[in-house]
Amino acid sequence: MPQSQFQSFDETSDPSHGPARLAALRAELARRGLDGFIVPRADEHQGEYVPKNAERLAWLTGFTGSAGTAVVLKDKACVIVDGRYTLQAREQVDSSAFAPVALIDKTPEAWIEDNLPAGAVFGYDPWLHTPDNVKRLAKAVESAGGSLVPVEGNPVDAVWKDRPKAPAAPVRLHDIKFAGESVDAKLERIRERLTKQRLDALIVSDPHNLAWAFNIRGGDVPHTPLPLGYALVPREGQPTLFLDPAKLADDVRGALSRSAALAAPKDFPAAVASIAKDGAKVRIDSGTGAAALEQIVSAAGGKPDAAPDPIALMKASKNSGEIEGTRAAHRRDWAAVTGFLAWLDREAPNGQVSEIDAAEMLEDFRRRTNALMDLSFPTISGAGPNAALPHYRVTRRSNRRIGPGIFLVDSGAQYQDGTTDITRTVAVGPPTPAMRAHYTRVLKGHIAIATARFPAGTRGVDLDAFARRALWEAGLDFDHGTGHGVGSYLSVHEGPQNISKRGMTPLEPGMIISNEPGYYKAGGYGIRIENLLLVEEPRRVAGGERAMLGFETLTLAPIDRRLIVPALLNAQELAWLNAYHARVAAAIGPELGPTDRAWLEAATAPIPPPAAAP
Amino acid sequence: MPQSQFQSFDETSDPSHGPARLAALRAELARRGLDGFIVPRADEHQGEYVPKNAERLAWLTGFTGSAGTAVVLKDKACVIVDGRYTLQAREQVDSSAFAPVALIDKTPEAWIEDNLPAGAVFGYDPWLHTPDNVKRLAKAVESAGGSLVPVEGNPVDAVWKDRPKAPAAPVRLHDIKFAGESVDAKLERIRERLTKQRLDALIVSDPHNLAWAFNIRGGDVPHTPLPLGYALVPREGQPTLFLDPAKLADDVRGALSRSAALAAPKDFPAAVASIAKDGAKVRIDSGTGAAALEQIVSAAGGKPDAAPDPIALMKASKNSGEIEGTRAAHRRDWAAVTGFLAWLDREAPNGQVSEIDAAEMLEDFRRRTNALMDLSFPTISGAGPNAALPHYRVTRRSNRRIGPGIFLVDSGAQYQDGTTDITRTVAVGPPTPAMRAHYTRVLKGHIAIATARFPAGTRGVDLDAFARRALWEAGLDFDHGTGHGVGSYLSVHEGPQNISKRGMTPLEPGMIISNEPGYYKAGGYGIRIENLLLVEEPRRVAGGERAMLGFETLTLAPIDRRLIVPALLNAQELAWLNAYHARVAAAIGPELGPTDRAWLEAATAPIPPPAAAP
Repeated sequence: MPQSQFQSFDETSDPSHGPARLAALRAELARRGLDGFIVPRADEHQGEYVPKNAERLAWLTGFTGSAGTAVVLKDKACVIVDGRYTLQAREQVDSSAFAPVALIDKTPEAWIEDNLPAGAVFGYDPWLHTPDNVKRLAKAVESAGGSLVPVEGNPVDAVWKDRPKAPAAPVRLHDIKFAGESVDAKLERIRERLTKQRLDALIVSDPHNLAWAFNIRGGDVPHTPLPLGYALVPREGQPTLFLDPAKLADDVRGALSRSAALAAPKDFPAAVASIAKDGAKVRIDSGTGAAALEQIVSAAGGKPDAAPDPIALMKASKNSGEIEGTRAAHRRDWAAVTGFLAWLDREAPNGQVSEIDAAEMLEDFRRRTNALMDLSFPTISGAGPNAALPHYRVTRRSNRRIGPGIFLVDSGAQYQDGTTDITRTVAVGPPTPAMRAHYTRVLKGHIAIATARFPAGTRGVDLDAFARRALWEAGLDFDHGTGHGVGSYLSVHEGPQNISKRGMTPLEPGMIISNEPGYYKAGGYGIRIENLLLVEEPRRVAGGERAMLGFETLTLAPIDRRLIVPALLNAQELAWLNAYHARVAAAIGPELGPTDRAWLEAATAPIPPPAAAP
Repeated sequence: MPQSQFQSFDETSDPSHGPARLAALRAELARRGLDGFIVPRADEHQGEYVPKNAERLAWLTGFTGSAGTAVVLKDKACVIVDGRYTLQAREQVDSSAFAPVALIDKTPEAWIEDNLPAGAVFGYDPWLHTPDNVKRLAKAVESAGGSLVPVEGNPVDAVWKDRPKAPAAPVRLHDIKFAGESVDAKLERIRERLTKQRLDALIVSDPHNLAWAFNIRGGDVPHTPLPLGYALVPREGQPTLFLDPAKLADDVRGALSRSAALAAPKDFPAAVASIAKDGAKVRIDSGTGAAALEQIVSAAGGKPDAAPDPIALMKASKNSGEIEGTRAAHRRDWAAVTGFLAWLDREAPNGQVSEIDAAEMLEDFRRRTNALMDLSFPTISGAGPNAALPHYRVTRRSNRRIGPGIFLVDSGAQYQDGTTDITRTVAVGPPTPAMRAHYTRVLKGHIAIATARFPAGTRGVDLDAFARRALWEAGLDFDHGTGHGVGSYLSVHEGPQNISKRGMTPLEPGMIISNEPGYYKAGGYGIRIENLLLVEEPRRVAGGERAMLGFETLTLAPIDRRLIVPALLNAQELAWLNAYHARVAAAIGPELGPTDRAWLEAATAPIPPPAAAP
C-alpha cells in the first residue's frame, strides 16, 4: 500500500506525563499567586487546527482531541470533553491527576462554580478566550465567590520545557486566477462595509479571513493552508499585516507591500492600542477575537465592537474565479474518488483491505493528480461499528478490516484551485434489508436538499429538516448538522453559513455548502452521503412570481445502487438519482481506463421505476 | 341576515380630530418641559387587544389598526405602521398633522434618530414599553443628542377629555372541569420553577398567564376572555392578585381568597417595591413586563430578571381536562362551520351574498350551538382581491359580493371549553386552472405539516419550510408564519410556540398550534387552509429507534375538492386527504339534516388516484 503523507494513524499521546506536568503547573500558579487556571484547547485565533506550540491541553493532560478544556485548582483538576471524546479522554488522561468529565454533565463553568473555593484567585489567558467566554467564566468564578484575573504570559508555557517554536511556514501568494479578485478590490469592499457599519477600524483575527483578504496562503497548521497572523484595517489609509518576517520571501514581501504595511507580530498589541486611541470604534470578530484585544482597545480609550468580521460573509460567497477553480478541483477529485471506489469494489470483498489501507489508497489516487496540496481533513475511513461514530478517526489500534457489510469513507482534498469534501457509503458483500432501508432514507434526505428551491433570505435552519424528514418518519435521526460551508483552497469547515438547527445565515449565491445527512446504527454501522453544493443565482420559475435560489451539486461520484430500495423512492427522487448518475457517467467515464469505465457504467446505470407506483 | 353580536363592520375613525388633539398634547408636553413623546399602540400588558381607555394612539391620530406608533415632536409628528396598515393609516390619519411612515422604511427609533433635535428632552410612558423597547429608544434618542425621560402619568390621558374608564367586566371562575388543574397545583408547579431558576418572586404581567394560573376568566377586552390585572408570586408564601374589586363578586372573591391575597391595582407598585427589597431576584416577563416594573424593582434594591414568565410554557401544554374541552369545543364548531359551508355553497352562486353576510351567517351558525361566548377574533371574510390581504377585515365600505371565483373565510369561536380557529377557501362558480394549481400547492404544504413526525426538541422553525416547499418549487411563497399557538378558552394567538421562521420554542405534547399555509395573488385572490393541531405524545415507530412526536388534526370540515388538482398530489398526500374527509363525514354527517348531509357526502367523497402515477 502507498503511505499517507498527510495523515498519521499513530497514537502519540502518553498519559504518564500528566501528574508531573500538573505539579509543575501548580508550582508556577502558586508562584504567581493563582489558585486556579483554565487550559482550553485553543490558540490565539480560536482555530479548528492549532499549531504544535499551542497544544497546551495535550501537553498538560495527554488528551489530543480537537475540543476540550482542563481546569486546574490547587487540590483537584479535570478534563472536560464532549460526547465524541469521552472514551478517548479516559484512555489518554491519567485520571489520578485529572478527573475526566463529560461536557453533557458539566460545562467548565459549572465545574468551576461547584469546585472553586470562595476567595480563590482564578487565572485565564486572555489571548485564548473570546470576550463571551470570559463573561461566562467571570459569572461562574464570581458565583463561587472567587475573582477572575487575566495572566500575562501563559503559565503552561513557563513550565513547558521543550515547547515547540511557533510555526513559520512560508507564506505563498494565492494566484489571482484562483482568488478571482485583487487585494485592492477586496480592501475597497471591506472599507465600504466599515463605513456602512460606522467602524473606524477592523481587527482581522481570523487567519482564514486574513488569507482571503490578502490573497495569501500558508502552512502553519495541518489541512488548512493558513498563515497565522493578524491584520489591522483602518477605515481610511493602509492596512497593516502582522506576519512573522521569517515566513516572507522577498517576492511575497514585495507583492504584499503594494497593499499593506508589514510588521512583526510582536508589534501587534501596540498597533491595536494606537489605532484605538481617540475613541475609535474597533470591530473585533466575535467568533475569533481574543478577550485581550478587547482589553487593549478599551484600555487605549477605544470602543470595542464585538460582532462578526465582515470579511467572513464576503469570503463565503465565491466569485467567478473561485467558482471556476472549485469546478476544476472537483473535476480532478471526481476521477480520483471514482477510481478509488472501483478499486475498493474489486479488492474489499477479499477481506484483506483495512480502514488504513483504504485511506492510504484514496490519498494515493488523489496524489496521482499531481495537484494534491494536502488532505482537507484526516480521512474518516470506517468499517462496521467504527463508522457509527460520525467523527471517527482511524488509528493503528482501532483499524479494522473492511466488510462484509457497509463501509463509509469521508474525505477531501486541498488543491490550489479549490477544496473538496465527499462521503460515500458502499456495500461490501450483500447488504442487509435494514442497511438498504436506512441508506435509502438517508438518500431521500440528500435528494430533498439537493433539489430544494427557496427564496432569498432562506437560512440553513429553514432547510435542515428536509434532510431529516424521511428518517423521522421511520423513527430515526442523525446527531450532526446537515451541511457546513466550504472554503476556496481554505478551510473545509467555513462559516458563517451552514445547514443545521443553528444555521441562521441566509444562503447567498456563490456559497459552497455540504449536503451530508447520515444515519448511525450504534455498534453496527454508519451511513452518510455527502456532496458539495453551490448556491445558484436566483432564477424565475415558469408561472411563478418570485425568483428562487437553488443548489448545483458540485460533487460527482456514484451513489451505491446496491444499497437503494427503489420502492422507497418517489418518482421525482428516482428521476434525480438517474439524472445524477447520467452526469457522473458522462463526466467521469472518459477519464477512466476500460476496466474502471465498465465498472462505472454498471454503477451508474439507471434504476427503472418499480412496477407499482410508490 | 342575522346580525353580528361580536364584530362591528363600521369604521369608527375620524381623521378630523387629529390636529386639535395633537395641539393639546403638545401644550401638555410643553407644560411638562418635554420636547417630544412616543405613543405606542399598547397597554400596560403589551396585549394584542387593548381596552378602550388605552386606545391612545387611535384617540390621538385616528388610526385604529392593531399595531402602530406615533411620535410627537414640537414641530412634526408621524404615525408609523407596518405593511398591513399603510393604506388604512393614509385614510384614517390627517397627514397635515401626522406624516404616515411605513415601518419597512423607518422604525420609530430611526425616525427619532433622524428628526429629534440635539438637546431635546424626549418622554415615554414606562408602563407602555418593555425594557427592551426602552433600550432601543434610549439608543436612538442618545444618538440624536437628546435625553430620554420616563413620564409620571401619561400626558395623553391628561388632555383626553372623555377618556373611558378602565374596563371592569366581572371576573368568572374557570370551572376545574375545563381548567383541568387546581390553582394550588398550578401554584406549586410555578414555585418549583421559581426555585429551580433561583428566583425570589415572579411578577405576572401577562393577563393570559394570570387567567390561566388562577383559573379565572374575564371580559375586559374583545375576543379574549381576559381579566386585566397583575399577580405577584413569591417563591414562598401566598401570592397576591391585583384586580379591580369592582370585578369581583362575593363568590369569586371567596374562591380566590383560598389561594391568594386580593389587593387593588393601585397598591401594585408598592407591593412590587416591597417584594424587591433586600436584593430579591424578581422575574419580569420579557414579553409583557413594563419598563416601570424594572425601574421599581431596581429602585427598591431588587434584581430585575428579564426573561419569559415560566407560566407561558406551562400554559402552552394543555392538560387532559383542557384537551377534552378543546375536543368538545371543536366538535361543536365542526357542525356549525360545515353547516355554514353548505349554506354558502347553495347561496353564494346566486351572487347576492356579501362578505359581511357571510361573516354574520357564520356567527349565527355558531350562536345556534348555544355555547358561543365570543368570536376568537374578527372574522376574515374575503372575496376576490380582498382575500389577497392576509389580515383583511371587512368593513361596510370594503364589503364585496362573493364570487364568481374563490372566497376565503378565517374565523374562530370562544366556547367555555375551548378556542377554535379555522380557515376554508371555497370555489364559487368554476375556479380557474391557476386557482386550482395554487390551492393544491397550499394543500400540499398543509398536509406536509399535518403528517410531520419529529423528535423531541424540534421547534416550529424546523418545520416551517415543510409548509412552503411545494410553493417554493413553483416560485411562490406566503409572507406570514405557518402557525400560531392557541389557548384554552383564552387567546387564539398564544405563545411561546409557533411554526414560523422565528419559532424557537420546542414543540411539546399538549400544545395546540394552527396549520395555515396560504397563497395570495395580489389584486386577484387569496388562499389559506387552516386546521388546528394538537401535538401528540411521542410514539415509537415500528423499526425505529427514537420515539417521535406528531400532530393530531383537531379541526374537521371539508377541504374544497373542486379546487384540488389530483395529479399534483402524490399517493401519500391523496391518502391523507381521503382519510381526513372520511373522518369529516363520519364525525359531522350525523349532526346534520338530510340536505346538508347529502352535501357533505359529496364534499367529502374520496378522490381516486389519477390514472398515471404522479
